[in-house]
Amino acid sequence: MSAFEKIKKMRTEIGKKEWAIAEGYIPKYGTGKEPEFTSHETACILNANEQEAQVEIFIYFSDRDPIGPYKVTVPAKRTRHVRFNDLNDPEEIPRGTDYASIIRSDVPIVVQHTRLDSRQAENALLTTMAFPGNQ
Amino acid sequence: MSAFEKIKKMRTEIGKKEWAIAEGYIPKYGTGKEPEFTSHETACILNANEQEAQVEIFIYFSDRDPIGPYKVTVPAKRTRHVRFNDLNDPEEIPRGTDYASIIRSDVPIVVQHTRLDSRQAENALLTTMAFPGNQ
Amino acid sequence: MSAFEKIKKMRTEIGKKEWAIAEGYIPKYGTGKEPEFTSHETACILNANEQEAQVEIFIYFSDRDPIGPYKVTVPAKRTRHVRFNDLNDPEEIPRGTDYASIIRSDVPIVVQHTRLDSRQAENALLTTMAFPGNQ
Amino acid sequence: MSAFEKIKKMRTEIGKKEWAIAEGYIPKYGTGKEPEFTSHETACILNANEQEAQVEIFIYFSDRDPIGPYKVTVPAKRTRHVRFNDLNDPEEIPRGTDYASIIRSDVPIVVQHTRLDSRQAENALLTTMAFPGNQ
Repeated sequence: MSAFEKIKKMRTEIGKKEWAIAEGYIPKYGTGKEPEFTSHETACILNANEQEAQVEIFIYFSDRDPIGPYKVTVPAKRTRHVRFNDLNDPEEIPRGTDYASIIRSDVPIVVQHTRLDSRQAENALLTTMAFPGNQ
Repeated sequence: MSAFEKIKKMRTEIGKKEWAIAEGYIPKYGTGKEPEFTSHETACILNANEQEAQVEIFIYFSDRDPIGPYKVTVPAKRTRHVRFNDLNDPEEIPRGTDYASIIRSDVPIVVQHTRLDSRQAENALLTTMAFPGNQ
Repeated sequence: MSAFEKIKKMRTEIGKKEWAIAEGYIPKYGTGKEPEFTSHETACILNANEQEAQVEIFIYFSDRDPIGPYKVTVPAKRTRHVRFNDLNDPEEIPRGTDYASIIRSDVPIVVQHTRLDSRQAENALLTTMAFPGNQ
Repeated sequence: MSAFEKIKKMRTEIGKKEWAIAEGYIPKYGTGKEPEFTSHETACILNANEQEAQVEIFIYFSDRDPIGPYKVTVPAKRTRHVRFNDLNDPEEIPRGTDYASIIRSDVPIVVQHTRLDSRQAENALLTTMAFPGNQ
């Protein structure tokens, strides 16, 4: 079996349908060339399934009701690195504000959280897998 | 169903009632504008439930008995990013000292650990999900 | 029993046969002495078994079909820190492009994801355990 | 019940008896004031039990047999942040070399992996929970 055939037949159901990220913060400003070095907070989503994933993101705050759902589609066998900075429907996520998020999908996905903080001359990076729900 | 109705009806029980963070260290000093760039160690807590979470934090050391509980309330459908620096009842957490923590709640929560280290001109960041207990 | 005998007899089956890393990005350039400070993205694999691990890596993109498998062998009781930068069969992983990966093995392994970003004068580091599948 | 009585009665069995860290690397040099800013790699261990933990650390390499066990004791209700740099019995862990580790305990513990890299003027930090075994 050729590599091409193998990748075509490769099947996996890895992932969960619900994920949580308790940490969230989009800095108000950054330094460096945009958009590569714009401060950003990202939910990296992998959909390894053979069907498209309909994803909904809900944002939680410390002092107001949650907002959402932000709707994101991830095609079959694709990854999508969603920048929270870019979400604007139903509304923009406020800058300089603590938040958290829950991410739901109709098929199993894998979610990893990453932040690039460019408020200073040298960038700082952080990442962690999101916390998976039971399903 | 409108987005508003959907967010109102959104239910989840994601999380656990007990979490551990084995790493803890509040640097003795920092650089940069306070409080944004004060060195800090944070437990980001997400309570996605429809009821308030009563949270207790216990701090463990290398050479003395643990202290606590520090009591924190996280309202329903809210996040709270707790800075260990700010905990002062029953006592302040000593600076420049290794510690670890256990976080307990009466309802399921999600806990993520983050540190901003500003001892030098450029910040360093780290994050990880805390380790969940069985319940 | 001597330390030597103990390490010889030490057995473990820790790990899983399938892992996912949702975040992937090889910067286009870096600064500093190569190869130590070349920007790189790494999958650190631990094979604590008594038999060799046959590992296959599949790379997912946002806008094209996945590629792979990249074949890696990890001998018994060895670790191998695989730099995605070095993978070139069936093809090089493009720089400056979002990707994700799935890693499969015929025996249980442990996979941890690390990136050194040296695009700026001071390096940034990130790490997280990969997300384990059910097997 | 007073805070003192509560902390005395606080019981938990959080943790596992086996953990793996697939990434390991002690840089050959660092900058800054020692030992605070010495490059170091740490396994932060939390023993929240009421009995002492007898811990053994095994180090795996890419091109030689594993070494160990390094024996570490963590008293009841204590944390110990073990620097791999300091381990020297049965032998020092070589600098500038990829390694991985397995950590075993006779009682449940929680293990978190942290590295401070001070090879450059500004430090970089990384952390992740270690990967837990089944027990």
